[in-house]
Order: sequence, then structure tokens, then C-alpha cells
Amino acid sequence: MSTQAAADPLQRLLDRGGPAVGDALAAAEERLRTVVADAGVPLAPAAAETIAAGGKRLRPLLVVLAASAGGVLEGQHVVRAAVAVELVHSATLVHDDIVDGARLRRGRPTVVARHGRAAAVGTGDLLFSRAFAELAAGGEVEPLRILTRASRALAAGELMQREDAYRRDVSVERYLRRCELKTAALFEAACALGALPAGDDLAGGLALFARRIGLAFQLFDDVLDVAGGEEHTGKKAGADLRDGTVTLPLIIASERDGAVASVDLRELDGEASIAALCARIAATGALESSRERALGYVASAKEQLGTLLAPDRRVLLSLLADAVVERRS
Amino acid sequence: MSTQAAADPLQRLLDRGGPAVGDALAAAEERLRTVVADAGVPLAPAAAETIAAGGKRLRPLLVVLAASAGGVLEGQHVVRAAVAVELVHSATLVHDDIVDGARLRRGRPTVVARHGRAAAVGTGDLLFSRAFAELAAGGEVEPLRILTRASRALAAGELMQREDAYRRDVSVERYLRRCELKTAALFEAACALGALPAGDDLAGGLALFARRIGLAFQLFDDVLDVAGGEEHTGKKAGADLRDGTVTLPLIIASERDGAVASVDLRELDGEASIAALCARIAATGALESSRERALGYVASAKEQLGTLLAPDRRVLLSLLADAVVERRS
Repeated sequence: MSTQAAADPLQRLLDRGGPAVGDALAAAEERLRTVVADAGVPLAPAAAETIAAGGKRLRPLLVVLAASAGGVLEGQHVVRAAVAVELVHSATLVHDDIVDGARLRRGRPTVVARHGRAAAVGTGDLLFSRAFAELAAGGEVEPLRILTRASRALAAGELMQREDAYRRDVSVERYLRRCELKTAALFEAACALGALPAGDDLAGGLALFARRIGLAFQLFDDVLDVAGGEEHTGKKAGADLRDGTVTLPLIIASERDGAVASVDLRELDGEASIAALCARIAATGALESSRERALGYVASAKEQLGTLLAPDRRVLLSLLADAVVERRS
Repeated sequence: MSTQAAADPLQRLLDRGGPAVGDALAAAEERLRTVVADAGVPLAPAAAETIAAGGKRLRPLLVVLAASAGGVLEGQHVVRAAVAVELVHSATLVHDDIVDGARLRRGRPTVVARHGRAAAVGTGDLLFSRAFAELAAGGEVEPLRILTRASRALAAGELMQREDAYRRDVSVERYLRRCELKTAALFEAACALGALPAGDDLAGGLALFARRIGLAFQLFDDVLDVAGGEEHTGKKAGADLRDGTVTLPLIIASERDGAVASVDLRELDGEASIAALCARIAATGALESSRERALGYVASAKEQLGTLLAPDRRVLLSLLADAVVERRS
């Protein structure tokens, strides 16, 4: 598969990672399937479908690569942590889809679309609970501290996004704070959990790395939402604008173009007006500026690695940082 | 306040409990307020309102009384556990209200009614996360095991209720299983957490006591839903029937009256038809039969106490068992 590997940065990374990384990811995948199949409750299929639908498994990958960088890849803590972060991520997706009323996720019907709102609320709650249970089974409390901090941040980010919906006075700082909460915090937790047995210094340092990658990831996502990138995001261009979610491209474009600044997002009326606003945002150069900022975060993330790890230890995480850029730009 | 105390079984219990019980409950109440105020996020007010709206604090009380029975009432573990179980309970209320579209809870507007669905999803998630964080801060993993088990059960119970909605073939066994999941499991966790430092035997024994009390509590609730008890439940009579939730009174009545058995809950049409069905269920004696069963659980709960604790240690929990009956029948 080396020809494909060259085309796909994540695959290239896995090829470089060798069997230990692949084995850990496979074990996490196997365990994820068991956890949801074994839920022993009605509508467990909804949870199982959510997990089976896949996704990039970027957060488990971060756990595994952080553990690998710390030389602590062996052992159940890695699998537990990888499973727990993916379960939390999946729980938030299921709950987000209730809010957005999304019909499709990863090309499949969402839990809310297929089974209704009650099932989606319960499925998300169940996935959250399973995540914490997975770590509790490991017998250490510190991983639970790390994960609860992240899950609080995710919920806070979601609340912040809702509070700021349709507001045209959202500052760049506030936008970035929201990205930290709703995206970067779980990336951070993934790295901290993976590297934990290697010591607090490494775990803390890698958490900073992950925060920057997480910010970059969210910024690229928000750029794609305006630029149109259905093949990456699975969403139509302008989905954020439709929801009233104010992101960096819109904030920057509003500073540069009074007509963009004066748009009332509540009055966007159908696909044509959304497409027109996307085009107008793009015309200000706001997408390039947003991408530049994201690339800056990636660069500083990689610098952070340099202060923490010997070159041979940082290769994989460095490739992951590149992969975030390559898949998103 | 002794004249009031005589009228209110919970107050009578607190009077008997003495200052140590009162202090622990007050500390938990104080901490609950701090936790939600300190959430440091937008819409934290929604979480704070939910907590401030009160409720009976039955689950914190169970924690405190179990700790008292075990002679382990001193110390932060009791406060943490009391706070954590109430936060989990509050999280499920906020999420349940999304599903039911409930406008009022404890006489105040629900989070979903006041702030919308997104805020309610996020607020519930935040309260869940805070609950686990509260226990993680205690540095012991066993409490987290206990609470995650309960929160999984709650979510599973909610999913089960939804899966069984409108189904007329729900058996008594399945109904009871649902009650165990959605109500008794958290009562169980409360007692197990309170008694934990006193040893596994006591914690396990009290968990069984709590399961029975929890079942009784839910059965009385379901009787009140048919009998009409808005002053207790804050809901109109027949709310379960309106949601398609099949409870013990309906199951028993259906065995006794073919006309009840043949009702299609989806076709209930307005208040008059719901009131008529409630009356018809009552006419079969199903409410008395359900109450009898609940009283049986209370009696067996109290027997359970007798096998576990010396008489002077079981007084308060025994009063609590009585309070569940007195407030609900």
C-alpha cells in the first residue's frame, strides 16, 4: 500500500510508526467495538453505529503517538486512554447533531435522525459515561482528572458557541478561546493521557503541542466551511453561517469589508445568500489570513516538540502536525 | 420548628440526625453552589438555576445518612460524593426536559424552555463533567467506578424507556429493570459512596437497601402520575401516558381490564381522554396494587438494614425509608 501511503499523510505516518503504533491503534479499535457492543442496553446499536462509522480517529492517534514519543507505548493505559478520548468525542458529536438537527454524519444518518432526540440524548450520555468508566477501570485517578477537565471544556465551548450565536461583536480572542474549549482541550487531553506514565513534564509539554494542533485543526475546519470542502467536512459550505456560528474568516472579513460586517446572519435567506456571503468573505482574503494563522500554530507546535524531545522521538508527532495541515488546506 | 418537623418526615429525620448530618448537608449545599457558580463559562447561570431550584436533595441525603450509619461522616469524601450524585441527577433532569419538551421543573422554567435546546444539551454535559471532576479531585478511583456505573445505568434506563415507548407488551420485569436503571442505580451509588470508607461489606449492603428504596420511590412516582399529584411531581396527571411511558399501574390495569389493554397510547387525544384513562386504570385497583408492591420494597429495604447495622445506627436510614413512603403515598 506504499503508493497510497504517499498520498495520505496519516497513512504515511502509520507506515513510519511501525507495528507498535499500529498494534496499539488496532487494540483501541477492537476495544471501542467491544465497549459499545457490550453496553447491554436497548439502542446500544445507536452507539455502535456512531463508533463504527469511523472518522479519522485523530484523538486516539494522538494518545498513541504521545505514548510512543514518551517511550510508554506498551500497556493497557494507552488503549484505555485512546478509547476514552474517542468515546468523549463521539458523545459530543451525537449531542451536537441534536442541536444542529444534522441528518448525516460521516455519510451515515445521525443518531438523532434515525432514532430521535431522546435516543440521541441518551446515547451521548451513555458514551460519556463509558468513557469515564474506561479510565476508572484502569485504577488511576489522574487520567480521570485530565479527561473531566477536557469534557468540561467541551461542554463550556458548546455553551459559549451557542451564547455567541449570531453576535457580530465576537472578538478574535473570544473566538480562539472557544476553539480551545471545544476542540483543542480534547487534543490536549489525548496527548497528556498518552504521555502520562512518562512523567508530568513531558505530558504537560505535549499538551501544549496538542493545544496548538487542535487550534490549527479547528481553524482549518472553519476555513473549509466557508471555502467549501464537503469531501472533508461532510457538510455543505456555509453551515456555520447558517447556524449563526461566527468564525475567524467572518471576523477577519468583517474588519476588511463593511458590507460583510453589516450582514445580519439571522436574515440569511437560503442557499444563494449563503453562497454569496461565502464568496464575499473569500474575496477579502480572510481565508488566506485564517490559514496563515493556523499554519503559525502548527509551526509553533512543532517548535514545542523540539524543546521536549530528541529528533528520533518527535518524528511521528511532527508528521501528525503536517497531516493536520495537509488534510485541511 | 418542631411542629413543622412532625409534619414533614424529612425534617423529622434531620432533627433526629443532629448537627453532624445537618452540617454535612449544608457543606454539600454550599459546595454545589460554588461548583456551578465557578463554572466560569457562558450560560453557567443555566446550570446554577437548575441547582438553585432545589429539589429534595434526596440523593445527597442518602450519601450523608449512609456515611453516618457507617461512622464515616467526617471528611471531604462525604461532601464530594453528595455533590457528585446531585450533579449527575441534575444533569439527567436537564437532559430529560429536552426530550419531554418540559416547560417547568420544580416550579421554574426549565433550561430548555428558557435557553433553548443547545444550552440544555451543553448544560447537562457540563453538570455530568463537573460531577466526575468532583470525585476525581478526591484522588480515589473507586468512587469514580461507582458513579460511572450509575451514570451508565441512568443513560441506559432513558434509552430503554424510549425504546419501550407506546409498547403495550412491556412486562412487569422489564418495567422494574427500567426503574432500577433510571432511578435505583443512583440511589445505590449514593449509599455506596457514602459508606465506602467504612468498608465494602457495608457499602454493598447499603447499596441493596438503596436499590429497594429507589424502586419504591419510582413506583410511588408512577402511581402519582396516574392518581394525580401535581403538588408532589410538578407534572399534570397522565404525563407518562402522554409520553407513551408504560408504567406498573398501566401494566396491572391492562391485565385486569381488556378496555385498558386495548388502548393505543399514540391515539390518546387531549386531556379528556387521558383523564378518562387515568380513571379507568384507578378503577381496576392497579394503583393500590402498585403501592403495595412499593411498600413491599420499603419493608425489604428496612429488613436489609437489620442485617447490616446495629439498631442505633439504622435509625436515620429507616426514617428515610419511611419518608419515601409518606411523601409519595
